[in-house]
Amino acid sequence: MKTVLVIGSTGSMGKAALSGLSHHKIITANRSGNGADHTVDITSEASLRKLFDTIGNIDAVVNTVGYCEYATFLEMTDQQWRTTIDSKLIGQMNIVRIGSDYVTEGGSFTLISGILSVKPIPFAIADATTSGAIETFAKCVAFEMPRGLRVNVINPTVLEESWDVYGEMMPGFQPVPATLVGKAFQRSVDGFISGQVLTVDA
Amino acid sequence: MKTVLVIGSTGSMGKAALSGLSHHKIITANRSGNGADHTVDITSEASLRKLFDTIGNIDAVVNTVGYCEYATFLEMTDQQWRTTIDSKLIGQMNIVRIGSDYVTEGGSFTLISGILSVKPIPFAIADATTSGAIETFAKCVAFEMPRGLRVNVINPTVLEESWDVYGEMMPGFQPVPATLVGKAFQRSVDGFISGQVLTVDA
Repeated sequence: MKTVLVIGSTGSMGKAALSGLSHHKIITANRSGNGADHTVDITSEASLRKLFDTIGNIDAVVNTVGYCEYATFLEMTDQQWRTTIDSKLIGQMNIVRIGSDYVTEGGSFTLISGILSVKPIPFAIADATTSGAIETFAKCVAFEMPRGLRVNVINPTVLEESWDVYGEMMPGFQPVPATLVGKAFQRSVDGFISGQVLTVDA
Repeated sequence: MKTVLVIGSTGSMGKAALSGLSHHKIITANRSGNGADHTVDITSEASLRKLFDTIGNIDAVVNTVGYCEYATFLEMTDQQWRTTIDSKLIGQMNIVRIGSDYVTEGGSFTLISGILSVKPIPFAIADATTSGAIETFAKCVAFEMPRGLRVNVINPTVLEESWDVYGEMMPGFQPVPATLVGKAFQRSVDGFISGQVLTVDA
């Protein structure tokens, strides 16, 4: 049994991750603190540092959040790009950088990208671009992590459980059950792989 | 014959691009203005807008610059990340967004990534991550460009002409002649492809 921090535990992707990690000791965090053990804002280095200081050493960090703005490319403002980059790219990288002081030898970081980097749809250019960035980040940073720390990324398609919300903007996409995405999180946390993108698509 | 704006024309990659575009009318720009027709700082929206306003309508934009900071991941500061993202990612995206008002129907944008996103080396995580980002950006944004505008990315390995500078940090890499990279720029500018990453590696 490992001790696993799950960031974004109350969201639909967080629940998907939890479905594959029930055999571990789970510590949860989200932005509001409602329904989770801890509060964290991944866009704040201070907030991340405080979270890790509070919970101490752990074996794995799973992040399921990355806020994205949606607009056409030509209408997307500089501020919308920066908001997305601060969360989905820099926020996730800071989880790895700051968290690396707290994760035990051979432990893992599991980050999140998204299928829209592979299957583009209107309004999702910032989501897609930062997903591509975090995937390349994981593939490359894996080689320089200390103490055997591992970094992987889950790239899920839309969840069956979220189809009511996103289905209309994703015509022709085949949703997958959250439990299938949970398996990918489990494979990252419980396996020995690193620098991998685990795509969960149908 | 097309009218082609080449940004970063005096750098080694700019010269590589120019080697494949000599049959076109070339307008050059770089940061200092030395040895180029115009001055531009791609991290400044105002500077880009001024450049495009000055030169008017063109058929193609070729960008060969994207400033990157180099450090180990654990030592790279937030400011170093932002400096790299502002230039290689946001700067290049702004070339496309702002330039789309000035490039003629069916015209093209050719951006730059780099082989370190595919072949990681120490200290290059910011270069690699932003290269991956701009490649995903091009692959996805191509579908939403107006008036048949095209967007491609050249991913070159190290140039023979730059081997004296970079060779020591890239052991086992095979440099390629600048003229081969020039061919990729030509293929993007003169072809009909879009959303493509043109990798030039040996």
